[in-house]
Amino acid sequence: MLRQEGFDLVLLQEVWSERDYSDLKAKLGGCYPFSHYFRSGVIGSGLCVFSRFPILDTLLYQYSLNGYPYMLQHGDWFCGKSVGLVVIKISGIVFNVYVTHLHAEYCREKDAYLPHRLVQAWELAQFIRHTSKAADVVLLGGDLNMHPEDVGIRLLRGWTGLRDAFAEATRFEGCEDGCTLIPNNCFTVKTELLPFPLGIRIDYILYKAVSSFTVKCEELKTTTGTAPGMDIPFSDHEAVMATLHIRRQGQAADGNLGTAEPTLVDVVTEARTEVGVGLRAAQRQRYSTGRMAVLALLLLLLQATLGTLAGLAAGQPFPKLSFSLLAFFAIGILLLATGLHLFHTIEVKMLQGTEEQLRMALRTLQEHPSDG
Amino acid sequence: MLRQEGFDLVLLQEVWSERDYSDLKAKLGGCYPFSHYFRSGVIGSGLCVFSRFPILDTLLYQYSLNGYPYMLQHGDWFCGKSVGLVVIKISGIVFNVYVTHLHAEYCREKDAYLPHRLVQAWELAQFIRHTSKAADVVLLGGDLNMHPEDVGIRLLRGWTGLRDAFAEATRFEGCEDGCTLIPNNCFTVKTELLPFPLGIRIDYILYKAVSSFTVKCEELKTTTGTAPGMDIPFSDHEAVMATLHIRRQGQAADGNLGTAEPTLVDVVTEARTEVGVGLRAAQRQRYSTGRMAVLALLLLLLQATLGTLAGLAAGQPFPKLSFSLLAFFAIGILLLATGLHLFHTIEVKMLQGTEEQLRMALRTLQEHPSDG
Repeated sequence: MLRQEGFDLVLLQEVWSERDYSDLKAKLGGCYPFSHYFRSGVIGSGLCVFSRFPILDTLLYQYSLNGYPYMLQHGDWFCGKSVGLVVIKISGIVFNVYVTHLHAEYCREKDAYLPHRLVQAWELAQFIRHTSKAADVVLLGGDLNMHPEDVGIRLLRGWTGLRDAFAEATRFEGCEDGCTLIPNNCFTVKTELLPFPLGIRIDYILYKAVSSFTVKCEELKTTTGTAPGMDIPFSDHEAVMATLHIRRQGQAADGNLGTAEPTLVDVVTEARTEVGVGLRAAQRQRYSTGRMAVLALLLLLLQATLGTLAGLAAGQPFPKLSFSLLAFFAIGILLLATGLHLFHTIEVKMLQGTEEQLRMALRTLQEHPSDG
Repeated sequence: MLRQEGFDLVLLQEVWSERDYSDLKAKLGGCYPFSHYFRSGVIGSGLCVFSRFPILDTLLYQYSLNGYPYMLQHGDWFCGKSVGLVVIKISGIVFNVYVTHLHAEYCREKDAYLPHRLVQAWELAQFIRHTSKAADVVLLGGDLNMHPEDVGIRLLRGWTGLRDAFAEATRFEGCEDGCTLIPNNCFTVKTELLPFPLGIRIDYILYKAVSSFTVKCEELKTTTGTAPGMDIPFSDHEAVMATLHIRRQGQAADGNLGTAEPTLVDVVTEARTEVGVGLRAAQRQRYSTGRMAVLALLLLLLQATLGTLAGLAAGQPFPKLSFSLLAFFAIGILLLATGLHLFHTIEVKMLQGTEEQLRMALRTLQEHPSDG
């Protein structure tokens, strides 16, 4: 399909295996002579870009928080979730193209990962703002794992000024409401989509013009379930395809921030509250894992003392089986609790850092409501 | 001293304790009303900035490689080494100020951390290039842990176009050759400095003008050993202080890359070779830790089989003490080897990624020697 459609640019997520990327590269080389694979984490970032135009430069930013290593069943932590940037130039217009994949949402009612996803959304917004200042056009595509009304996407859009191709498109063709995770896809988990009979829209193409250009989304399309001539779909998510019309204009476009600052203040405040909730949870976990490590250490010391005393008394050089098992158990708990304590220490630091940055952003917005 | 001298901007490294930062902030609040502490890693990034002028924005980029978690005696891994960016505006001139601290060099003859430090130098250069495009002036200050002639600093300077304040200064006052780690400082390790009787210069102030400005270093100073009126020095490193003269000029300054591209090609090639050496070492370690994990798993399976057979035969529900100790030993090795294998997998990925980016940079330099 990628070969048939002949896009200018293809942004893929969840290409975990580098061999898959190499296969794609070999098969797509004819239509997309330029490509880049972003490496990170144990498994990888899963991000790659195929382009008809030369890739001039790349940069990878790895999010500072990305779930928990012990949530093996979710596995996000091992993926090294990141945002990748490729710079391309088409007809003299500089495009900063960002591809990303944020932390998944496994339970919308009790979303333990919301603070992490918000930190990611904030870091994504900051990374785009700081790196796109010389670009003419900014494009962001990817699986943001956020519904259109979620605080994270409002923060990202408000803070960067990026516009949603789905909302702006002149023509639309595809799944109802632009949904990209739909129930009648054989790879989706049906129970998770029960509250959303049409599905949910969590994959986006966002854009903005930075300098004296305008961008308009002429057409937006999504794939709709099964691939033509096959009985399985292309992927568990529907692909999003946008046709963008870019025009040079005399006048400079809007500033970096969105236009409605009073709303942005509310969004940043809301995000800060959620990050604060996550911070307090992380502080509790840091405390309880630290306490567990101390208890395990005390148990070990107690055992060592008792063991030495018993050994001296009975002339027996080695404690009994149950005794040594208990010691190993204590060592195991000590190591585990110490590791978790270190992890939650990092988590606390990063959440504090983000909360402080959001506070700074709020101050900037309130002091300079017009220029941000 | 910071209060007496009344600098415009102070960049500090190795402020590991947030309480130390808070103390500094309280004491320096009068002269430096604006400040930022960059949080990252278990211990922290150690980076902070104090400024006479408002800090408009900040961004932190954590290096993807930073030593080994099991090198506890070196400890760099736990620090979350990063580069911090603060944006300030003085008289309408936008300054992008970067503060960083790269991985230490513990043994110059056999520097196992050279590939990691090179990855950091490359990421630092890329981060500066991508984020400084709207700045008028770029400043970088910090402990780069590289001698002036090292490949990492040549790569950083060549790829960003940053100039060395020490080399450019009209006046210089301080330690001979601008050294910042000197033998007659009571905190330095004398044996490490034996080959360098004057000391070494590893702390830098680098700068460049991006848009239509020129920067000139009028004076560069270093502290020289003990603090006035005290018998201990301020720190184990000498502080570097620069007086910069910034002037608006009609004509735009040089492009992003340094002027001497043929040299830059050599530097990038040299860096790529060193990263390649690190990559092969990491691949060997990934292989050997993976093999160790498999062996430990086999030992465990063998024990489980033997244990079950023995238990069934003798009707004894529990294996003997030595048997269970061996099992715990095998579990310990399995966990450790798996952890190390995952770590070296990440290391291989990041070194591969950097090597590929350097290859791309070389191609760009060779194809477009003039505009890079």
